[in-house]
Amino acid sequence: MDKTIVDLIVKKVLEQLQAEDRRILVEASGRHVHLSKEDAIKLFGTDELTPVKELSQPGQFLCKEKVRVIGPKGDFKDVAVLGPCRGKTQVELSMTDARALGVAAIVRDSGDTAGCPSVWIQGGNSMVEAPSSTIVASRHIHMTPEDASRFSVKDGDKVSVRVHGSRKLVFEDVLIRVNPRYALSMHIDYDEANAVGLNKEAYGEIL
Amino acid sequence: MDKTIVDLIVKKVLEQLQAEDRRILVEASGRHVHLSKEDAIKLFGTDELTPVKELSQPGQFLCKEKVRVIGPKGDFKDVAVLGPCRGKTQVELSMTDARALGVAAIVRDSGDTAGCPSVWIQGGNSMVEAPSSTIVASRHIHMTPEDASRFSVKDGDKVSVRVHGSRKLVFEDVLIRVNPRYALSMHIDYDEANAVGLNKEAYGEIL
Repeated sequence: MDKTIVDLIVKKVLEQLQAEDRRILVEASGRHVHLSKEDAIKLFGTDELTPVKELSQPGQFLCKEKVRVIGPKGDFKDVAVLGPCRGKTQVELSMTDARALGVAAIVRDSGDTAGCPSVWIQGGNSMVEAPSSTIVASRHIHMTPEDASRFSVKDGDKVSVRVHGSRKLVFEDVLIRVNPRYALSMHIDYDEANAVGLNKEAYGEIL
Repeated sequence: MDKTIVDLIVKKVLEQLQAEDRRILVEASGRHVHLSKEDAIKLFGTDELTPVKELSQPGQFLCKEKVRVIGPKGDFKDVAVLGPCRGKTQVELSMTDARALGVAAIVRDSGDTAGCPSVWIQGGNSMVEAPSSTIVASRHIHMTPEDASRFSVKDGDKVSVRVHGSRKLVFEDVLIRVNPRYALSMHIDYDEANAVGLNKEAYGEIL
């Protein structure tokens, strides 16, 4: 048999298998900060932050740099900074975290921080104010256009996802975010991860 | 018209309205301790704890007495004690709490503490060990036999409940607990309350 045909068959079988796999990896996001270039320069003297670990989304990385996030009632030390820098500084907390800091816990999609609480961020030997920066990130699923086609959804859709942990639940209104640079994974915060008793390598299924 | 008949009509109309109301009040339970009589006597010199506030379940009350709960990695001060005393001391935590104390977060129905973590409890001027005492309580609904009949469920059933908060979800495997002394309410922990963005006076609906 022609080698090209063998390759084609293998490809088709793999695609078919993948099409039947409706599972989505579920990851819990801890509290973290995205810094604007301006704030990174003020705090660390550079907007080229130091990658120490790649994240599941291609190009995103955990930085060597850590910050302290300060609110009216409390603060968190050694908070993770995720790189690369973004257009605007954004702080992502769980509701538990927001209560501990003493700021309102407002659920928002990433990037949509208008009217959200301000905090102060300390890092290096400096401190910056991060106005309207602080959100509880909406639960969401990153996927490629190919994934979206496979799941019959499109960017901006909201779906329901059953997650199997030590106690089962269905997250509703889960935002679909489609981008060729994304890798398939669902992001929830630690309150949500605890509510479902999330284990490592937990999977969700779109209903 | 006969007054008895008027009363009968009013009763039937009210019953019908109630039957159509499928809403269940959802309450978030904070970390708390139920003490055995023996442990209450060791800590506070009495098994007649001092009620300061009635809880939604008839006969249950928040006590004036507070305790400190101590685990291998941390402790919580001023933890609520709920009365009256029970047969065995039981500590109910969220997963977040369990992690902070340094004990395993095991989801169990109330009363089923075999093999669960031990902690130490300090109160008054004494300290007791509470072996196999510490659980993350399974989400559950208290109801009367009349409620059970109205919702077509029975004691021990597991149901799915949609709760409307600032972010919506469906809790699955919610345990039904039926007792003539209960009042209708669903109990979840603070991780679960945060996951759904629970507001005061939030309601759930059995699906």
